[in-house]
Amino acid sequence: MLDMAQPSIGDKVKIKAKKASYEGILMPRSELSDKEHIVLKLNSGYNIGISKKDISKIEKLPENMETKSPKTRVKVGKGLPKLSLVSTGGTITSKVDYKTGGVSPFKTGEELLAEMPKLAKIVQIDDIIQPFSLLSEDIGHKDWSKMAKEVYKELGKDKEGVIVTHGTDTLHYTSAALSFMIQDLNKPVAVVGAQRSADRGSFDGQMNMLCAAHYCLSDISEVAIVMHGESSDEYCIASRGTKVRKMHSSRRDAFRPINEEAIAKIWPDGNIVMSGTQHSERSSGKPKLLDKVEEKVALIYSYPGARSDILEHYIDKKYKGIIIAGTGFGHVATQPLDKKDSWLKSVEKAIDSGMFVGMTTQTLYGTTDSMIYSAGRLLKNAGVSYLKDMLPETAYVKLAWTLGNFKRSEVEEKMLENITGEFNGRIQPDSFLY
Amino acid sequence: MLDMAQPSIGDKVKIKAKKASYEGILMPRSELSDKEHIVLKLNSGYNIGISKKDISKIEKLPENMETKSPKTRVKVGKGLPKLSLVSTGGTITSKVDYKTGGVSPFKTGEELLAEMPKLAKIVQIDDIIQPFSLLSEDIGHKDWSKMAKEVYKELGKDKEGVIVTHGTDTLHYTSAALSFMIQDLNKPVAVVGAQRSADRGSFDGQMNMLCAAHYCLSDISEVAIVMHGESSDEYCIASRGTKVRKMHSSRRDAFRPINEEAIAKIWPDGNIVMSGTQHSERSSGKPKLLDKVEEKVALIYSYPGARSDILEHYIDKKYKGIIIAGTGFGHVATQPLDKKDSWLKSVEKAIDSGMFVGMTTQTLYGTTDSMIYSAGRLLKNAGVSYLKDMLPETAYVKLAWTLGNFKRSEVEEKMLENITGEFNGRIQPDSFLY
Repeated sequence: MLDMAQPSIGDKVKIKAKKASYEGILMPRSELSDKEHIVLKLNSGYNIGISKKDISKIEKLPENMETKSPKTRVKVGKGLPKLSLVSTGGTITSKVDYKTGGVSPFKTGEELLAEMPKLAKIVQIDDIIQPFSLLSEDIGHKDWSKMAKEVYKELGKDKEGVIVTHGTDTLHYTSAALSFMIQDLNKPVAVVGAQRSADRGSFDGQMNMLCAAHYCLSDISEVAIVMHGESSDEYCIASRGTKVRKMHSSRRDAFRPINEEAIAKIWPDGNIVMSGTQHSERSSGKPKLLDKVEEKVALIYSYPGARSDILEHYIDKKYKGIIIAGTGFGHVATQPLDKKDSWLKSVEKAIDSGMFVGMTTQTLYGTTDSMIYSAGRLLKNAGVSYLKDMLPETAYVKLAWTLGNFKRSEVEEKMLENITGEFNGRIQPDSFLY
Repeated sequence: MLDMAQPSIGDKVKIKAKKASYEGILMPRSELSDKEHIVLKLNSGYNIGISKKDISKIEKLPENMETKSPKTRVKVGKGLPKLSLVSTGGTITSKVDYKTGGVSPFKTGEELLAEMPKLAKIVQIDDIIQPFSLLSEDIGHKDWSKMAKEVYKELGKDKEGVIVTHGTDTLHYTSAALSFMIQDLNKPVAVVGAQRSADRGSFDGQMNMLCAAHYCLSDISEVAIVMHGESSDEYCIASRGTKVRKMHSSRRDAFRPINEEAIAKIWPDGNIVMSGTQHSERSSGKPKLLDKVEEKVALIYSYPGARSDILEHYIDKKYKGIIIAGTGFGHVATQPLDKKDSWLKSVEKAIDSGMFVGMTTQTLYGTTDSMIYSAGRLLKNAGVSYLKDMLPETAYVKLAWTLGNFKRSEVEEKMLENITGEFNGRIQPDSFLY
């Protein structure tokens, strides 16, 4: 039925189908596996597939949405407080390309600023650093080091703080990496992304950037993720870079602090309310860069029926460290599944091979404890380090960083040292599902 | 210093240390790796380690806490509604053994009932089925089948419903397994555990069992986890067995419904408030048992720097299925890390080998979507099944079950079919962090 109307890709069309009518931009289907559907980008920004069989009419509408994309160029504000911007890719710096389909990153930081006139009114951003442009699922260990180097350089300049823009998929891994790689931080570093793209009415990037800018003008000297605190546009929260996790695939308030409250609520008009959570303050000290990283580190989950030969795989590949996201207080099966499979033996073998094995909990909230059940005691006896309430993702990043920057003999001690707030000595009960 | 006072393991002692004084039961340290500390079980039930160096005085107290453990035997109530109890181990059926240290399961169901006189007042429990007694981290695929068989048998008897007691570590994996293995369920099945052991003031097992019993007297015919809804003792929630996850290592309200509201709130006095969440009703139909399970199934997480050779490991081991907990809308890196590593190629190789590869999201809340970003489209093109808002843990269980009970050619369709409420077609925004 599509051929009947012969609209082109990128045209705005109205489609009458069996159940409903739809208006939107006709998207290309080159990368789509299903040839029975056509794909329409609705005005809401979402793509839907419509079965060709169900379509009774396709009408080309006169207006082409492409003409809606902003053409304004915003002059960078002079005389305002200066911030650095490290731009790395992701939705916050992405737009929809109606000719090729899908979402692609902006090519220049200027294009980004053109989308955010409110930001240009409160801060001056001269330098736009682009170490790379990647969707965040493609970011690897070496990219953490690249970002840390750039942020470190900017911290030495005459700027109030640094904003890092980044895709949201792995934003919390990067915020943890920057937290560890830049020691004795002297200024605010805001790590920020967007859950909705700039072509959508629900775009959250502009407000997140505004809040991030206000964060960078504050006295809080921590690496923090600054994004929506609620689904509405009321305020953002700044969550410590090592105590935060993406907890929803699409909500604008997806980034939640875990095992502690957010450091601050930040309103887009610049109002900041502190939660009382401990944090470092802006200082005149000089930060230290520890940007090496060990790549032979893995994160594995424990679940019923999980076989311990996964550890043998990593021993064979000469891995230096493993973080286990165990069940409950930090458990794997300690009763062998069968004669060939014993987690206790595999853990011992891994540790004998020189590997560091750290335990976290897949419950995410709460802390590990090796002392409550026999499984914990047996695993601790076998040499597993219990990493308290550190998030599995943060522990993974910290282990790659610790193995990269310290002697092997110091690793266990470093992993248990509270370096940048990755442990919360006093978990507040009301911080659950905050 | 410990030798000075020479108290025995199991004695109640008062210890004066540098920072504070402590009273509790002296615990054995045989399984503890650290010989510099002695371990005390405080009256709160928690164990603490006290550095021997800090101890200035140990005083043996006259009272031995062992005498506090309940000796009452409760007669099983006659003439009350009948329930079945399938007891499998875990904290809810555990007590502390002061002579050997740690927590160990009760040996008989009668011992359990003796702890719960309130339960015996509202329901009659004649049969106490014990297919095995395991801590839940040791439960494997075959144990799911054993439990399903026993529950299925009980459903055919003249009982109102079935309570399954179980350790909490993997309780939600088991509730998902029972949800799939027993089709056309005709009665309520409550899966229940305890986060705190029976020797502690904060023991939650009795109230959870009471609520589970009330659930079993209701008309809700679903496998549900029935446990504390709040940290206080006010009410329990019944969460669908496929839409629930242990979200805290120690809180009594650790089990949270994900991507839908709990089916009901249940007060220990029997008051039940329904949330309006869709559910099946008690019926006179006959359930169907599909209890086979494929063991060669794995659950892996995606994270920055994760290498795709983990898939090669599972291809070599002739695995039949993999669930990936991807980032964001369901992503792994689609840009190769280096020449040796490409997730897209490894995924294609896995699928060519006959493996089913399913995608979920590690954000837990929200849904996967292959259409929004290029990574999703590329992975879907490579043959990955996007499993909507199904939890990674539920998807893992469902895959083991689907591969066990259906032809390989039916697996993809079955994985995408909403069999027992594992998909929520209409995710309510307010169900986030519910």
